[in-house]
Amino acid sequence: MQTCNLLLHADVIVTQNQEREVIYDGAIAVSDGKIAAIGGKAEVGAAWQGAEQLALGAALVMPGLINTHTHMPMSLLRGIADDIPLMEWLTNEIFPREARFSPHMLEVGTLLSCAEMLRTGTTTVCDMYLNEPHIYRSIDKAGMRAVAGEGIFAFPSIGYADPAKALDAAREQAAELKGNARIRYAISPHSVYTTNLDLLEKCASLARELDLPLHVHLAETASETAQSMKLYGCRPVEACRRAGLLTTRTLIAHGVELNEDEIALLAEHGCSVAHNPRSNMKLASGIAPVPQMLAKGLNVSLGTDGAASNNSQNMFAEMSACALLHKVRSMEPTTLPAWQALDMATVNGGKALGWPELGSLSAGSPADLTVLDLTQPNLAPLSSPVSHLAYAASGHEVVMTMVEGKILYAHGKFPSLDYPALRREAQNLHDWLRKQDRP
Amino acid sequence: MQTCNLLLHADVIVTQNQEREVIYDGAIAVSDGKIAAIGGKAEVGAAWQGAEQLALGAALVMPGLINTHTHMPMSLLRGIADDIPLMEWLTNEIFPREARFSPHMLEVGTLLSCAEMLRTGTTTVCDMYLNEPHIYRSIDKAGMRAVAGEGIFAFPSIGYADPAKALDAAREQAAELKGNARIRYAISPHSVYTTNLDLLEKCASLARELDLPLHVHLAETASETAQSMKLYGCRPVEACRRAGLLTTRTLIAHGVELNEDEIALLAEHGCSVAHNPRSNMKLASGIAPVPQMLAKGLNVSLGTDGAASNNSQNMFAEMSACALLHKVRSMEPTTLPAWQALDMATVNGGKALGWPELGSLSAGSPADLTVLDLTQPNLAPLSSPVSHLAYAASGHEVVMTMVEGKILYAHGKFPSLDYPALRREAQNLHDWLRKQDRP
Repeated sequence: MQTCNLLLHADVIVTQNQEREVIYDGAIAVSDGKIAAIGGKAEVGAAWQGAEQLALGAALVMPGLINTHTHMPMSLLRGIADDIPLMEWLTNEIFPREARFSPHMLEVGTLLSCAEMLRTGTTTVCDMYLNEPHIYRSIDKAGMRAVAGEGIFAFPSIGYADPAKALDAAREQAAELKGNARIRYAISPHSVYTTNLDLLEKCASLARELDLPLHVHLAETASETAQSMKLYGCRPVEACRRAGLLTTRTLIAHGVELNEDEIALLAEHGCSVAHNPRSNMKLASGIAPVPQMLAKGLNVSLGTDGAASNNSQNMFAEMSACALLHKVRSMEPTTLPAWQALDMATVNGGKALGWPELGSLSAGSPADLTVLDLTQPNLAPLSSPVSHLAYAASGHEVVMTMVEGKILYAHGKFPSLDYPALRREAQNLHDWLRKQDRP
Repeated sequence: MQTCNLLLHADVIVTQNQEREVIYDGAIAVSDGKIAAIGGKAEVGAAWQGAEQLALGAALVMPGLINTHTHMPMSLLRGIADDIPLMEWLTNEIFPREARFSPHMLEVGTLLSCAEMLRTGTTTVCDMYLNEPHIYRSIDKAGMRAVAGEGIFAFPSIGYADPAKALDAAREQAAELKGNARIRYAISPHSVYTTNLDLLEKCASLARELDLPLHVHLAETASETAQSMKLYGCRPVEACRRAGLLTTRTLIAHGVELNEDEIALLAEHGCSVAHNPRSNMKLASGIAPVPQMLAKGLNVSLGTDGAASNNSQNMFAEMSACALLHKVRSMEPTTLPAWQALDMATVNGGKALGWPELGSLSAGSPADLTVLDLTQPNLAPLSSPVSHLAYAASGHEVVMTMVEGKILYAHGKFPSLDYPALRREAQNLHDWLRKQDRP
């Protein structure tokens, strides 16, 4: 008999392991932040004794979800401006308010996003924003797992007054995170239209030098393509290729405006794509050719994008939007089946972040997991658990979220956050931001 | 000082009244199943004393949502078959199982759907199914509001062995419901492709004779159009027009395959359309031209369709799918703004069902309302309440649902149902149905 920190029992475990096993009447032994054992309740119970025991009963345990593209502090701007043309939205509503984001606001917005993600079963997030240390330190404090990077622009940002110093900032931030088990760094050039070829090349070479992943907005809209044609005389993907930005460690956010050749090129270079269906729908950016990407062997994960363009950061909503949207787009109900949407939100996410241990539950993998209450009427009767996760769940059936063996959300409580104070402060800051609009 | 049964206070009330007023720090006086008064807390509190008081605090009160198209017992088939071609799905997976539905199964499936709807804020539902008395009696027992009708086919169904008796069944059911304050009847020819012109004409004339609304599946898929061309030598809308089925009291479910002329024709006849975005996406039926319908002045409401093709019956999910889908379809982010999606789920639903008192909160209107917990992180900070309802809410923030002044859902409990027993029985019946597949 071996001992572990925690022994969980649950009616259903969706492992997302190599065999995509679903275990009924299952158990998980958790020790030192990792899964020590997973299997049938009888079998695991015979071999493991838990210092703590948690009998979850009519519950479904699954890997923590992986949100591969967002901008955490933007939760402060949730719902501040909707239903207006994209350039007006960005120029009049978003940019001027973001320019006012103080370090305190970045922290509060990030922690609020952590609460929202933990509440809906997300354990790992990939963030790109401005003045990123305030973001990744907040994520670290909340106990979540992340890949984070300073958005690199060819003009000043609230992260750096002098754009020439952007890469130095990135280098410093990467150094700060070295050895952090939960937070990793990504070199994050914002996009082709907010940088230039020289800066993109420097980003690629810094990523190579520091052995880090790259995260870039790419091929999001037709207007980006037009801008790229004007700036570089080529389409955005080609600009990235010229800059050496297409690597096996590159994560492309969006990939809406991709033609067949570009999909083949990205697949050939081993890039991953973070698909953000709800944001792309809300901003009317278009529908990313996801089935075509998957057919070419590209790794496609899911992301929410920031809360100003979604307006939630709920990976269950993305799974269902993704599975439904590509069916109607292709006019073929067999397109993007439930299992594929779930893969995109779990294992494909781990792969996209260069963190393949994430996104599945197996002996030895990190104890990052999510528990859903199966007694909710929309999950009854239980037929196919994977179908329920992709099509029937809202994300608010989540009753517990664990990262590295620590419970970060359970039944309305966030042990790592003072959530009531956080919510009040988020409201104060939001109200302050709105007040600035009317001088 | 007047007395009422219940006096509610809440931080926010989204009234959906004529002026689309949002009341902050508001109150509602409820008496005899109706709203006696609604307004600011101070003002209503000065005039009304409640036998009971409910201080909801950080909560949002809104009209109960109106689901204008579903098939309630199909919740028993939730997730039993997904991601397969439509005809295979219907013929191999759905029809043979529906043929096995006993009265007990109809009742359990309906009550499970009631629980799901109440849990996510729906108070009124429009149902079309087979052997409908078991459905509307169950809805009545659960305390919800409904418009229900026996699906009329030109062939035998579990509702009637002899199709010649279908209209007699409808006539009897309508008589049974006469005088029921919460459940009304609709003559419900299933579709043009499962009936014939003679039967459709008889339905239209029965609806006229009994002064009842009509509910029909129409223009759902391209294959329906092809079938109609073969059967009648005209498109489905024209077949309905010939049969006299296009009236101011006609509710058309789907309306995906409509051209400009047909939209104009439906508008001219004063029909309503129940848009089912998630079902149409999942079955790859297509995208209904909703912005074009609205532009022509057609009344468009929302529905979930049955739980086998969605797979939830959550009107918040429909609102958000609707608002997002039509933006990306039109490549225009101003299309289908939040307020319009909310109108479709509330006031337009009342209008579609010929029950215009429903869908808004005003003095004199039925006390059908829904309460959302504003402390959930995805609803923080509070900016525009209407934006949050359309884009950020999942539906599981609902903490209370009331119909006719009676609380039917509150904080995990369903006072009108034995929910734990219902869930167990739904699972037993589902398991039994699956077992029949493997003889």
